[in-house]
Amino acid sequence: MQPLDAFLARVRPQQTPVLVVRRAALMANLAAMQAACDAGGVRLRAHGKMHKCSALARLQVAGGAVGLCCQTVGEAEVYGAAGIADLLVTAPVPPWGWRRLAALAGASRVSAVVDSEAQLALASAAAVAAGNTMGIHIDVDPGMMRAGVPPAEVGPLMALALALPGLRVDGIQAYCGHHQHLPGGMERRTAALAWSDRLAALVAELGAAGMAPRQVTGGGTGTFAIDIASGVYTELQAGSYALMDVEYADCGGPDGHWPFRPALFVAASIVSARHASHNVCDAGLKAFHTNGPSPRVIVPDGSTWRSMGDEHGAIMPPGDSTEGALVWLQPGHVDPTVALHDAMLVAGEDGTLERWAIDARRFTPPIMVQPGREQR
Amino acid sequence: MQPLDAFLARVRPQQTPVLVVRRAALMANLAAMQAACDAGGVRLRAHGKMHKCSALARLQVAGGAVGLCCQTVGEAEVYGAAGIADLLVTAPVPPWGWRRLAALAGASRVSAVVDSEAQLALASAAAVAAGNTMGIHIDVDPGMMRAGVPPAEVGPLMALALALPGLRVDGIQAYCGHHQHLPGGMERRTAALAWSDRLAALVAELGAAGMAPRQVTGGGTGTFAIDIASGVYTELQAGSYALMDVEYADCGGPDGHWPFRPALFVAASIVSARHASHNVCDAGLKAFHTNGPSPRVIVPDGSTWRSMGDEHGAIMPPGDSTEGALVWLQPGHVDPTVALHDAMLVAGEDGTLERWAIDARRFTPPIMVQPGREQR
Repeated sequence: MQPLDAFLARVRPQQTPVLVVRRAALMANLAAMQAACDAGGVRLRAHGKMHKCSALARLQVAGGAVGLCCQTVGEAEVYGAAGIADLLVTAPVPPWGWRRLAALAGASRVSAVVDSEAQLALASAAAVAAGNTMGIHIDVDPGMMRAGVPPAEVGPLMALALALPGLRVDGIQAYCGHHQHLPGGMERRTAALAWSDRLAALVAELGAAGMAPRQVTGGGTGTFAIDIASGVYTELQAGSYALMDVEYADCGGPDGHWPFRPALFVAASIVSARHASHNVCDAGLKAFHTNGPSPRVIVPDGSTWRSMGDEHGAIMPPGDSTEGALVWLQPGHVDPTVALHDAMLVAGEDGTLERWAIDARRFTPPIMVQPGREQR
Repeated sequence: MQPLDAFLARVRPQQTPVLVVRRAALMANLAAMQAACDAGGVRLRAHGKMHKCSALARLQVAGGAVGLCCQTVGEAEVYGAAGIADLLVTAPVPPWGWRRLAALAGASRVSAVVDSEAQLALASAAAVAAGNTMGIHIDVDPGMMRAGVPPAEVGPLMALALALPGLRVDGIQAYCGHHQHLPGGMERRTAALAWSDRLAALVAELGAAGMAPRQVTGGGTGTFAIDIASGVYTELQAGSYALMDVEYADCGGPDGHWPFRPALFVAASIVSARHASHNVCDAGLKAFHTNGPSPRVIVPDGSTWRSMGDEHGAIMPPGDSTEGALVWLQPGHVDPTVALHDAMLVAGEDGTLERWAIDARRFTPPIMVQPGREQR
């Protein structure tokens, strides 16, 4: 792979601000995570919420992933239509979503997490009505207080799932979002292992009750090596590893270093260059979500970015003050930044560019309402 | 208009999270701003960067706006294709943008701001090559240090614009983004009037040099009444007034109160309700940009929202703990929040819902690159 600055110098997008994926880094990241999962005997189920791009999802499956994780019903519908044959919805499904997932389950293998009796009843009714089988994972709360049931309540919920028609009980999910960005090394390892010990005990309890989960799915980019080595997870749900961001770069890998390279950048243009203190580029709050760390300026090296509003950013110190000069930045937090864009350009080391649609980003299906008509 | 809570209780989106526009409030806001501009003899050029929705843009023009402001070349192309006949690009155009704007100028009346000699040269060359006339506004920096030239440099730049072929010098722009959210009442008024005095002097200087600007465009929602009364501006560029947000609600109108009502909301569903402290809804960082104030919870009244990640938010205290119960929120900062969505539902007092595409949000034209081909 060329040095990053030499590579970026060759990429010439014809519009800015735009997401640019370094294909060689992406492919290396996909291969590195697949190899780690294969070596550990763990299935990779790449998380599609990060990139929302079915072209990238197909690459992950072609590379060995068993399927995709989705965070929303809409993502599942887009990935299903794109030919992804095995889908898991990793967040609780709102009541309106079960009929759509049950319909999708006719073409793809579809599973979803549940953390309540009411969700199981809706899932079962929707599956029976559609004449399809709906997969279920019982969602376990590892202490995030976001979704999922405490370990002690998994058994009863799984027993109910086993008793309801139209459902296929695939296993359990335990996602530790609160561990992913803990300081690399001991702190993250200690937290992840403490939880995987508890999870192993839960799996044993379920086995003793004749309900051994076929799949234990969870984990993420920040804890991937610890999760794979734990021996508890049968599936890894990592997402960010494919493109990476400043937040993950700065917190370090589970063993301190990362086997994953930065693969996603934003190209911006200098649009006003009248000040000694800074230049103004065309990447602002609509090019970057700013909930996480600020985007990192790669070119010009050593400069920083500051928001100057919706469509403007300051580059300080200014660097090349030629209008139209390209500025290269790495997003602070990849997921919500990608959701602001509708396509990514994929750049090869040979100078080729392809356009990949971010086709699974939040969307409201046209069939959702009938314009002008009274709602039902 | 019904009370807000009674109105929201009737709206039943079939998917969440989703932007919902209260049509009656939107129409009242459009009418109030148009009436204020008409009474002051100032043209309203509504800013399309806020909503990125050509259906809404057409309503603004039908209601009396002379045209739309755009912040990007892509917005101008979408609004032009939607039949908006008069467009002004209010941010410096990157070098790659001039050819596209010059092509657009064949169908719509197109103008763009400039703050450098290089931009004028590119604009002129593109206009001549396209055989169309490109409108120009000289951008004046009111002290933001973002774009625009100091008042003393406007004359020479305008003289150059007048000398170049293919250009039509429409006037000057002076946008005071740094005034819009100053505390309502005296502080904002003092800052806005100090600037409009300086601007009036510039207009007089240009007139004395035989270059009196036909249009002086600028102003915004936060200073609209002050800008209209100043007698300097011929065009008001307000955007947020149409939908409003928490940031504008909290800073108050230019006279303390607002004639504009909240018209944009996000409907979210409770997806997990297992905790006494909070419920979890399906609106997170991909439903709200969080650069400004947090979204305000309207229903349940008195609760607050906290991000629980990309697709989750906590509602504290929980309110109705029924899964699927709707939560209603007002976005903190409207512009970048709208850019996260691809459509808004427009709800009538009579219970009707329409879907309006956010068709001018950031987009990369398919013609931008040729997949797999070597770049030119």
